[in-house]
Amino acid sequence: MVELKNDRFIRALLKQDVDVTPVWMMRQAGRYLPEYREVRKQAGDFMSVCQNPELACEVTLQPLRRYELDAAILFSDILTIPDAMGLGLYFETGEGPKFRKPVRTPEDVNALKVTKAESDLSYVLDAVKLIRNELGGSVPLIGFSGSPWTVATYMVEGGSSKEFAQIKSMLMNTPETMHQLLHILADSVTDYLNAQIRAGAQAVQIFDTWGGALSAHAYETFSLNYMKKIVSGLLREHDGQQVPVILFTKNGGHWLEQIVESGCDCVGLDWTIPLNEARARVGGQVALQGNMDPAVLYGSAEAIRDEVSLILNQFGKGNGHVFNLGHGIHQHVNPDRVTAFVDAVHELSAQYH
Amino acid sequence: MVELKNDRFIRALLKQDVDVTPVWMMRQAGRYLPEYREVRKQAGDFMSVCQNPELACEVTLQPLRRYELDAAILFSDILTIPDAMGLGLYFETGEGPKFRKPVRTPEDVNALKVTKAESDLSYVLDAVKLIRNELGGSVPLIGFSGSPWTVATYMVEGGSSKEFAQIKSMLMNTPETMHQLLHILADSVTDYLNAQIRAGAQAVQIFDTWGGALSAHAYETFSLNYMKKIVSGLLREHDGQQVPVILFTKNGGHWLEQIVESGCDCVGLDWTIPLNEARARVGGQVALQGNMDPAVLYGSAEAIRDEVSLILNQFGKGNGHVFNLGHGIHQHVNPDRVTAFVDAVHELSAQYH
Repeated sequence: MVELKNDRFIRALLKQDVDVTPVWMMRQAGRYLPEYREVRKQAGDFMSVCQNPELACEVTLQPLRRYELDAAILFSDILTIPDAMGLGLYFETGEGPKFRKPVRTPEDVNALKVTKAESDLSYVLDAVKLIRNELGGSVPLIGFSGSPWTVATYMVEGGSSKEFAQIKSMLMNTPETMHQLLHILADSVTDYLNAQIRAGAQAVQIFDTWGGALSAHAYETFSLNYMKKIVSGLLREHDGQQVPVILFTKNGGHWLEQIVESGCDCVGLDWTIPLNEARARVGGQVALQGNMDPAVLYGSAEAIRDEVSLILNQFGKGNGHVFNLGHGIHQHVNPDRVTAFVDAVHELSAQYH
Repeated sequence: MVELKNDRFIRALLKQDVDVTPVWMMRQAGRYLPEYREVRKQAGDFMSVCQNPELACEVTLQPLRRYELDAAILFSDILTIPDAMGLGLYFETGEGPKFRKPVRTPEDVNALKVTKAESDLSYVLDAVKLIRNELGGSVPLIGFSGSPWTVATYMVEGGSSKEFAQIKSMLMNTPETMHQLLHILADSVTDYLNAQIRAGAQAVQIFDTWGGALSAHAYETFSLNYMKKIVSGLLREHDGQQVPVILFTKNGGHWLEQIVESGCDCVGLDWTIPLNEARARVGGQVALQGNMDPAVLYGSAEAIRDEVSLILNQFGKGNGHVFNLGHGIHQHVNPDRVTAFVDAVHELSAQYH
C-alpha cells in the first residue's frame, strides 16, 4: 500500500478534490537543465542515459530538486520498444531519432515479435523501481509509452518525418500490413505499460504525438483503435491504488469525444484548443491535462503568470485539471522561468478549488 | 467584363449552384510534375522561376494541360514580400526557404517599409497578366499571399521552424515590436493582393500555414486580426465580377467561427476536421475548401476514389464546396494518381448537385 505525501496529481486525474491544481511538464527531465546536460555529456549519448537505471533515475529526479512539481515522469524514450525489436535505434546530433533497419515490407513486419518487457526492456523496469525507491512517496511516478501509430511512424519512416510518405503509403496500399504492425505494437505497449505499473508506475501516459497527422477516420482506424485496445488491457489498480491512464494525441482536439470512448481517465490537450471548450465537450467524463504553449516559457515571469492565470480561468472552478504544457519543454528555456511557471500554477489555482 | 468558360470554382466560392464540385490542388504547379522539374532545372533555382513571368506562366499552366482542374493558381511564393523588403531570400536544397538578414530586434523592424507591389513586385503582376492572357478564360486564376503571421515566422526565425522560439520570444517579450511587424506585413499584403486582383486574379487565397502553432487567444491577436484587416481592405469586385477571398489556416479548425468573422467568402480546411462537422458549424455563412490528406495520393486509383467519395459524402448535398487537398501535393506523388483524383471528384460529385 502506497502512502503518497503529495497525491494531488493522482487525485486530479480521478476528478477528486485537491487544494491546488497539480502541475508537471512533458520532458521536465531534459536539456534545458544544465545538470541534465552534464549527465548526458558523461554518459555519451541519450540512449546510454535511458539504458542505465542509475542515470535514468538521477535525471528523473533533477527537476524535482529545483521545482515543486507534483509528479515525476520516468526518463526514457518512446522508441525503446522498436529498439528492443532490433531495429537499431540511434540519435544523430540535431537530427532526432533514426533506425538502421526501417520496417517497409510485409516481410519486415512478419519478422517482428511482440516484446516482453520483463526480458526485453528490463532496464526500464529497473529504472522505475529505483526511482520509486528514491522518491520515497514524495510525489507519484508516471510511466509512459508511445502510441502504436506514433511508434510505427518512426519505424516505417526510419526516423522523424513531416509528410509521413512511407507510412501513409503503407496505410493506403497494404492496410493489412499496417494493421499487423499496429497489432504487434499494441500488444507490446500493453505488456510494457503493465510491467511499468507492476514495477511501480502510479499513472501512465500514452503519447500519440503523430495521430494528429491523420484524417478523422484514419485516426480512428489506425491510431485510436489501438490505443483503446491498450487501455482495455491495462492494470487499472495496483498495490491497492487506482492507476490512472492519460491519453495525449497532439492535434487531436477535434476528436475528443472519440478519445474519451477509449476509457482513459484523462485526455492530454495541446494549446490550440481552449480548455473551456474542451471541458464543455468532455469534461464531465474525464480529467483534462494541459495546455500551455511551451513557448510561453520564453516570456518574463510576469507574462508566464498572466498566461497561467488565463488558462486556469478557462478551465474554471472544479475538479479534473492537471496543468501541463501542450508539448515538451523547449531546450533553450531559462530554468528560472520554470520556477515562475510552477509557482504561478500553485498560487493562482487555490481560488478554483 | 470576364467571360469564364468554366466558372464552377468562383460559383462554389460564392455558394451558387454548380453541376459538379470544382477541384484544384495547393502546389498543383510543382515538383511532382516532370515538366516542372525540367523548367526548374533550366531556370536554376526556385526564385528564378517565380521572378520570370514567362516561366511562372508556363509552370502555372502545366497542370491544366494534364488535368481537368477548375482553377489555375499563380506560381509564386509566400515569401516574395520579405524578399522585396531586402531580407535576402534564398533556398538551400532540402532545407526550405532562408533569409540572409532575419528580423530580430525593434531596430530591424523599424528599418522595414511597407512594400508597393506595382514597383516592388512587378514581376508577380506581369506573371498574373500573362497567365490571364494565356488562360483565355478557360478557368479562373487564383492569386495569393502568405498571412502576416506566417510570413513573419520566416522573417524572424530566418527560415522554417518547428518550435518558433525566436518569434514567440518576440511575441512574449516585445509584443509592440511584434505588432509593428505584423502591421507592416498586413499593409503590404493588402496592397499586394489588390494589385494581383487589378492585374487579373479572379479569386485570392491567404495562406496562414503557421497560425495553427498559436494558442486560440494568441491566434486571434497575432494572426487572425491581421487577416481581418487585410480582408476588409481588399477589392471584392473587379472588372464587373466578384472576387472571392479564401482564408486557410492550417490546424485552425478549432477557430472556424472566429475565422468566418473575418468576412472571407471561404474557409480552407486541413484534413483533421471532418467536413460535416465544419459545415454544421459555419457552412451556413461561408463556402468550405478542402480537405483530403495529400498522402492519399500515394494510394491506388481505387483507394483515392474511395476517399474522394467519403469526403463528398461528408459535405453532403448543396452548395459551397470546393474540393482541394488539406495541404500542398507532395513531390513524390505519381502524376497519374492526380488524374484519378480530379476525375473522381467530378464523376462522384454530380449526385450532390
